[in-house]
Amino acid sequence: MNRIVTMGEMMLRLMPRGNLRLEQAASFDAFYGGDESIVAASLARFGMDAAYLTKLPDSPLGRAALSSLRAQGVDTRFVAFGGERLGLNFYETGAAMRPSRVIYDRAGSSMAEASASDFDLHGAFSGAAWLHVSGITPALSESARTLTETALRTAKELGLTVSVDLNYRKKLWSPERAREVMTALMRYVDVCIGNEEDAAIALGFTPEDTDVSRGRISVEGYKRMFERMSERFSFRYVAATLRESRSASDNGWSALVYDGKEFRSSRRYDIHLVDRGGGGASFAAGLIYGIVNRMGLEEATEFAAAASALKQTMLGDFNLATVQEVRELLDEGPSGRVQR
Amino acid sequence: MNRIVTMGEMMLRLMPRGNLRLEQAASFDAFYGGDESIVAASLARFGMDAAYLTKLPDSPLGRAALSSLRAQGVDTRFVAFGGERLGLNFYETGAAMRPSRVIYDRAGSSMAEASASDFDLHGAFSGAAWLHVSGITPALSESARTLTETALRTAKELGLTVSVDLNYRKKLWSPERAREVMTALMRYVDVCIGNEEDAAIALGFTPEDTDVSRGRISVEGYKRMFERMSERFSFRYVAATLRESRSASDNGWSALVYDGKEFRSSRRYDIHLVDRGGGGASFAAGLIYGIVNRMGLEEATEFAAAASALKQTMLGDFNLATVQEVRELLDEGPSGRVQR
Amino acid sequence: MNRIVTMGEMMLRLMPRGNLRLEQAASFDAFYGGDESIVAASLARFGMDAAYLTKLPDSPLGRAALSSLRAQGVDTRFVAFGGERLGLNFYETGAAMRPSRVIYDRAGSSMAEASASDFDLHGAFSGAAWLHVSGITPALSESARTLTETALRTAKELGLTVSVDLNYRKKLWSPERAREVMTALMRYVDVCIGNEEDAAIALGFTPEDTDVSRGRISVEGYKRMFERMSERFSFRYVAATLRESRSASDNGWSALVYDGKEFRSSRRYDIHLVDRGGGGASFAAGLIYGIVNRMGLEEATEFAAAASALKQTMLGDFNLATVQEVRELLDEGPSGRVQR
Amino acid sequence: MNRIVTMGEMMLRLMPRGNLRLEQAASFDAFYGGDESIVAASLARFGMDAAYLTKLPDSPLGRAALSSLRAQGVDTRFVAFGGERLGLNFYETGAAMRPSRVIYDRAGSSMAEASASDFDLHGAFSGAAWLHVSGITPALSESARTLTETALRTAKELGLTVSVDLNYRKKLWSPERAREVMTALMRYVDVCIGNEEDAAIALGFTPEDTDVSRGRISVEGYKRMFERMSERFSFRYVAATLRESRSASDNGWSALVYDGKEFRSSRRYDIHLVDRGGGGASFAAGLIYGIVNRMGLEEATEFAAAASALKQTMLGDFNLATVQEVRELLDEGPSGRVQR
Amino acid sequence: MNRIVTMGEMMLRLMPRGNLRLEQAASFDAFYGGDESIVAASLARFGMDAAYLTKLPDSPLGRAALSSLRAQGVDTRFVAFGGERLGLNFYETGAAMRPSRVIYDRAGSSMAEASASDFDLHGAFSGAAWLHVSGITPALSESARTLTETALRTAKELGLTVSVDLNYRKKLWSPERAREVMTALMRYVDVCIGNEEDAAIALGFTPEDTDVSRGRISVEGYKRMFERMSERFSFRYVAATLRESRSASDNGWSALVYDGKEFRSSRRYDIHLVDRGGGGASFAAGLIYGIVNRMGLEEATEFAAAASALKQTMLGDFNLATVQEVRELLDEGPSGRVQR
Amino acid sequence: MNRIVTMGEMMLRLMPRGNLRLEQAASFDAFYGGDESIVAASLARFGMDAAYLTKLPDSPLGRAALSSLRAQGVDTRFVAFGGERLGLNFYETGAAMRPSRVIYDRAGSSMAEASASDFDLHGAFSGAAWLHVSGITPALSESARTLTETALRTAKELGLTVSVDLNYRKKLWSPERAREVMTALMRYVDVCIGNEEDAAIALGFTPEDTDVSRGRISVEGYKRMFERMSERFSFRYVAATLRESRSASDNGWSALVYDGKEFRSSRRYDIHLVDRGGGGASFAAGLIYGIVNRMGLEEATEFAAAASALKQTMLGDFNLATVQEVRELLDEGPSGRVQR
Repeated sequence: MNRIVTMGEMMLRLMPRGNLRLEQAASFDAFYGGDESIVAASLARFGMDAAYLTKLPDSPLGRAALSSLRAQGVDTRFVAFGGERLGLNFYETGAAMRPSRVIYDRAGSSMAEASASDFDLHGAFSGAAWLHVSGITPALSESARTLTETALRTAKELGLTVSVDLNYRKKLWSPERAREVMTALMRYVDVCIGNEEDAAIALGFTPEDTDVSRGRISVEGYKRMFERMSERFSFRYVAATLRESRSASDNGWSALVYDGKEFRSSRRYDIHLVDRGGGGASFAAGLIYGIVNRMGLEEATEFAAAASALKQTMLGDFNLATVQEVRELLDEGPSGRVQR
Repeated sequence: MNRIVTMGEMMLRLMPRGNLRLEQAASFDAFYGGDESIVAASLARFGMDAAYLTKLPDSPLGRAALSSLRAQGVDTRFVAFGGERLGLNFYETGAAMRPSRVIYDRAGSSMAEASASDFDLHGAFSGAAWLHVSGITPALSESARTLTETALRTAKELGLTVSVDLNYRKKLWSPERAREVMTALMRYVDVCIGNEEDAAIALGFTPEDTDVSRGRISVEGYKRMFERMSERFSFRYVAATLRESRSASDNGWSALVYDGKEFRSSRRYDIHLVDRGGGGASFAAGLIYGIVNRMGLEEATEFAAAASALKQTMLGDFNLATVQEVRELLDEGPSGRVQR
Repeated sequence: MNRIVTMGEMMLRLMPRGNLRLEQAASFDAFYGGDESIVAASLARFGMDAAYLTKLPDSPLGRAALSSLRAQGVDTRFVAFGGERLGLNFYETGAAMRPSRVIYDRAGSSMAEASASDFDLHGAFSGAAWLHVSGITPALSESARTLTETALRTAKELGLTVSVDLNYRKKLWSPERAREVMTALMRYVDVCIGNEEDAAIALGFTPEDTDVSRGRISVEGYKRMFERMSERFSFRYVAATLRESRSASDNGWSALVYDGKEFRSSRRYDIHLVDRGGGGASFAAGLIYGIVNRMGLEEATEFAAAASALKQTMLGDFNLATVQEVRELLDEGPSGRVQR
Repeated sequence: MNRIVTMGEMMLRLMPRGNLRLEQAASFDAFYGGDESIVAASLARFGMDAAYLTKLPDSPLGRAALSSLRAQGVDTRFVAFGGERLGLNFYETGAAMRPSRVIYDRAGSSMAEASASDFDLHGAFSGAAWLHVSGITPALSESARTLTETALRTAKELGLTVSVDLNYRKKLWSPERAREVMTALMRYVDVCIGNEEDAAIALGFTPEDTDVSRGRISVEGYKRMFERMSERFSFRYVAATLRESRSASDNGWSALVYDGKEFRSSRRYDIHLVDRGGGGASFAAGLIYGIVNRMGLEEATEFAAAASALKQTMLGDFNLATVQEVRELLDEGPSGRVQR
Repeated sequence: MNRIVTMGEMMLRLMPRGNLRLEQAASFDAFYGGDESIVAASLARFGMDAAYLTKLPDSPLGRAALSSLRAQGVDTRFVAFGGERLGLNFYETGAAMRPSRVIYDRAGSSMAEASASDFDLHGAFSGAAWLHVSGITPALSESARTLTETALRTAKELGLTVSVDLNYRKKLWSPERAREVMTALMRYVDVCIGNEEDAAIALGFTPEDTDVSRGRISVEGYKRMFERMSERFSFRYVAATLRESRSASDNGWSALVYDGKEFRSSRRYDIHLVDRGGGGASFAAGLIYGIVNRMGLEEATEFAAAASALKQTMLGDFNLATVQEVRELLDEGPSGRVQR
Repeated sequence: MNRIVTMGEMMLRLMPRGNLRLEQAASFDAFYGGDESIVAASLARFGMDAAYLTKLPDSPLGRAALSSLRAQGVDTRFVAFGGERLGLNFYETGAAMRPSRVIYDRAGSSMAEASASDFDLHGAFSGAAWLHVSGITPALSESARTLTETALRTAKELGLTVSVDLNYRKKLWSPERAREVMTALMRYVDVCIGNEEDAAIALGFTPEDTDVSRGRISVEGYKRMFERMSERFSFRYVAATLRESRSASDNGWSALVYDGKEFRSSRRYDIHLVDRGGGGASFAAGLIYGIVNRMGLEEATEFAAAASALKQTMLGDFNLATVQEVRELLDEGPSGRVQR
């Protein structure tokens, strides 16, 4: 009963080599990913039975996206094929004071046009313990919103734990619409994950005395916010990642988790970034792994923070860390001594 | 009075290195192009005053597309900016019996949603002698069809010569709709260019005794077809390229031109292909160059055939040949002796 | 009951870019493969339930090899992990009169040291219709030879059809030892595949009036050889591929199949080679696909020949062709016209 | 009347990938640039009417250099063609305590051998507000020195504002000759830009209490130096960039500007360097942009410092920043938060 | 009499580009090296007569390894050819808290199976002043241990100075066996080099009050350890490098040397790592260079520390620094100002 | 007494990847070479004692050029260092009817400005049997012409056999000057090598009934020309390569050798070109190898033709073939069957 299902949109990320800008790129490195697929891939690598639901175009790109998941051991039997195109994004890696930039090109994607009838939800959820989604999918389109709600409701009916990564995307919808939709979905949610911006926009909660972008973080303020959120939506867990963006090259990274009783803040990592993408999703995967495997709150918090910090030292969407590597980081610290 | 204007959609071509397949590509080489931009770029390289009309998204990709034209010396002052996205295609280079494949991803592009009000057509055509378009643009959308007709009508009113490359794209419209629209546009056209498939589908004309795909070509059959087409639409010139596809690696290439009186067939080239893309557009550019510069029919035919054969030995959309290189090929033949 | 199991060794092929020589390479492209894995991957891509048995080191390279199979949809649940290393080969792509060269570095690999106790053969063969192996595995080591025999015997006991690709590798064993071992294994074999050199060395059969390397091929000579082989070993099918090596850049390719009654020779393909590796294994996959799907002898022969010709236009070990692409080649011929 | 003209030599920079050394490079990335072309390209990107004067060889390399400028929107109508070669430099990117190294190979370049008769200076300056040159061009050769003086004199006669980037290059001339020539040219100069080393060698002015290489900077010392320089040469503006070279990987960067009345020092940036090249030229472009667009002294100083800091996070000679990106850095600070 | 001979195993290092992981690499950059070959190459680059002894397979890879040494000017006349394979390692470059990882694949290499009869030791040592080996070679195999002892004994008999880099490799032997063998070899050794881990495991000496991995270093503790080691084994010099691993991206680096009378600790370098590999061997080369060229203890210590710090800013095994570059670093400090 | 010395200029060849044009290249692959260095490198690879004389700049590029020779085992002890620059060429690989193009940039190179006083000719020729030069060196400059003559005269005085590859380069001198200088040098020459164009321009001899560029070759005409040349200049051997340039992708290649008595024409090779550069020099190396090793005329002719054909299947200047590979080609023919 450790099967975990995630659902969302896969995208092809096209990224110039190194620090080249999009405008000057003569070629683009290709990475397939997308938030919920990162969660599934990470859990499969951690040894879990992880399945992923999406709709892909029946094309070489759709097949390559599928292959990238299979390569990590994700169960893709319930992936639907059809529709017009794979969502794309063009990603420019920043450096120092130049921010990374993402140009999304995802309108009309197969997943944006998918509906519940494309999927065998009961089959996919059969034997599963957990469903994970994000706030991106309901923002893609009205049909995707309906699909998300159907999936969440079905999962609840079948007794699955439901987690959501709030993940507000301003290019996809307005703050008002996001709050309306996300608030309505919270009735199905047991585990709520996000950062301070997501929580503020999607649910209307703000930590006191905190301005993460300026490096000012009140753990106490977060704790009180998590308590209010839990109270309001009956969450079993509330969690947040804290990214201190000192520059596009160097970030601080840590996490906070509340289980309705206790509150834990993880070790803080100084990351010389290789690829910041997928940090949040890798945290979600680590947290789900910890909860499903009955770690204590502190251990789960540290595991998820370490796993997601490691991700940001790797290129591409997926977190290629293994459980053993996460544990080594927890045991031996971030000194980075060579492993022979 | 040698200014030539072309109008169409630019695309970003994403192409795996060498003979890698789309499914296995870890990176994609990037080339900006599109049929009518190839014509403009080629004419600018030949030393003509060439302008291009299109609508591009206001994004790094849109700017890179613009830069690629400017780099070749094309006048881009009349390019419009706006809309959602740049059209894309994913291009897999074939080999031997494995065909090249193109996956188009162009729906909703800035140019597909452009209308005449985006452009200062009178400004762009001011001082111009020629307008060139293709059958791709009217196939993009209803607004693009209207734009094409407006541009052609305006050009005719201003006294420009109008050429069209028929270029049927089956993914964009049905043969029936193509014939309806293209036939209606022919009233504005002076110079009609295409291959046997385009002529058959878009205008309903077929050469007798000919099956190019099987290497059977009746020059006499083409001649009679050109005569019928000229009669029907009052073309000043009718021209066709003949691609003998022996394999995805090796093609035969030649051209036929009729000026209402005489008929010329060019030398045939055996091409070990580097990139077949842009062959037809490079022929159109060569032919326009020949006519505008008052070459005789034979010289213009040979110039256009040689220019477009050369293109297919180069990677990317644009024909990077110079007039001098085309002339060297005509003078010295295809022996490929090293130039020091 | 269309499950097909293959068993063998995976290798990491390290290959300089393009035509660079091993000695001058500053980097190597990496492809995971090996004959029987190619068969499994090809069958999985064709839509079959294909499983693969091997032993891989528990290392990033072992995991990458596993991922490459999963990516193609191969069932890898029965893969064993352990042992010291992944077999390697360094592959130099030839050109014109310079041959391709392979430097094997596979001694002591995990699979060479595997034994039957590493695998759940009954589990793997459960529900399967077919087992495919090659003459490479029994040549790896005495334990691998024993493993091969155990697998074949078990398969026969469970009623599976057994095919073998003779595949003589002179670096692994002597002709005498090869003939001794391979002859003994033939008692389990229903379908025997090879080329003229394999058949001569491994089984002692030579086609009359034939010298493939000089382009002299007697179809009649092959027919009589196949008849003799069938008689001797009670094969249900005997098949051979014919590679006419005109140069390292251009080969002729065709195939012959005999089903105990009829004999068919396929169309001959002129291939401008991209990567000749995997041609034989792709033929085996095509033939198995044809037989399992109850094609007639002629259709199966042509399908297998076309599939394996296509492979040689692709880089890497695996045949990335789909059934649809093979059928297009059979229907439309090798003209390589662009597919939009 | 916002047309700005710059004049100088373009070079092809050949640079090993990443941190590879020149000695070990199996390939070189190619970037076209050169100080004054960087100024022109940056101004064109900022939306100004920017023209560039140089002489290029009539070769593929000369055409590629020209294309690189056109791509950025620079007016290249007044570029001369002829001469023997394009100047080159081989550039090795340092790291940590290993300095970057530049091997110049520019002797005998087309621009070194150019003279005033190669250019239509009156045409190029027609309608222009500003001419920008650097101390590199007069150092190339006697004919280039004469050309520089002619251009400056002509510009003054036509009423243009003249700026110079002192840019002392020790491989091209001696400190004595540099001071002699540069001092003589100052009569035409309104805006004088340089760093502390340039000012000391080319004009003989040294800031008190300052040793930039050791991180000791006296703003007061600079102020007094600027006052003395203004007094001596009647400059309207004096400006300097301050590079604190802590290592080849990390630099501090700031700027000082004096307008004859007030003195401003910019924010200091900590830059994790991608490519330090073009920092000074990008500052010049930013300052010219600010002055021509009538920013106040503080705004112009900050704009120029931010623009030139951004450049150093990009690969290649040209500053690919837009006005909007510079403004975002000024508004949002150097936190490098991802832009979606 | 400045000829220096080193002996050991060469390996081909296969390394994904940049920060890619082994599992995701589609290609591997190739670097030939190995500790003692790095010493020889560095000394040859410093202008010494340096020879290297090893055994290589007679294959393209063996020839490429040989070429890499010759390219640096190493005398390879005494290299033996034969055996089965070249040792390999797969190297993954870490970042931030993710450690670099090395997967060795060296069993059965030509050098592991070499014996004294493969080499003309008297010829190779003729006219030589110094022999350098490491603790890796005796760990490869029993025959390599015997070869090492024979080489050391022969060198001592011929009056050469003998240095050893302790270099414990846990994948090759147990701490117990290492200490047994290495202790026995110390009778031949004049100069003993290592880090704190090597000294502890291979010889059983530990510095007091020191935990390098935690950044706690007692220079006094090292001094006393060096005195005890010198007393025990009659070393002329004892030296250690100190790597403070703050992360996989940033290390501190310094060195300590004791000459039986005096003790010197070098300047400490903060290195933003390009490739940490070869740091220790480059230190050994620098120290040998200093001693052979009769530098004082302080100068030799600083030279060796600077040379080995520089190495870590370069990609590949070999230290491509020149004597001039090392001296520039000593003279000008680590500010990394561009060298034009 | 098998030592062979060659003398000439090394160049850095900068070449876009694959079939990219110089104008569009974002990077250039780097190959060090030059005709006489190719001869030395090839002979060293064939196991001869081969030394090379040149003058290189004391720079990373000069060192890299030196390393490239050492890597092949060439004796570089007599190479001089000094001067300003390394000669360069930019090389564009043609395809089909598009010729390859070379842009030379070699004026002012270290070798062009070298003189006899830079070299220890007596030391270099000590113990040598042969000196090889080409017609390129005397064309570089007057000092290089004098150096060439001094070297040839010294070699003759010391009893060396002298060979020359006529190699006319029209960018370096006029036909008139070439004939004057080359004719004067012939007094020192024993072995004269060239193609029909070289012989015609440099010495004024033309084969009857022959037009190689049109594929018309009269072996009888060549024979009579060789007889006339031998008579005029007392050559011991006259040899020519015949390149039939059918396209830039495919050439015919063969050779003719006359030893004063007999005349042999080699097998003709059809080469699908990888890199035609170095074909002539590789022929010279093969011929020298054959003569020095006392092959018969036929064997030497075939060896040299095969070696130089093989070269053209490899990228870069140097012929990386071994004697064994040349013999395999002679024994097994050009079928290119894979070597495992």
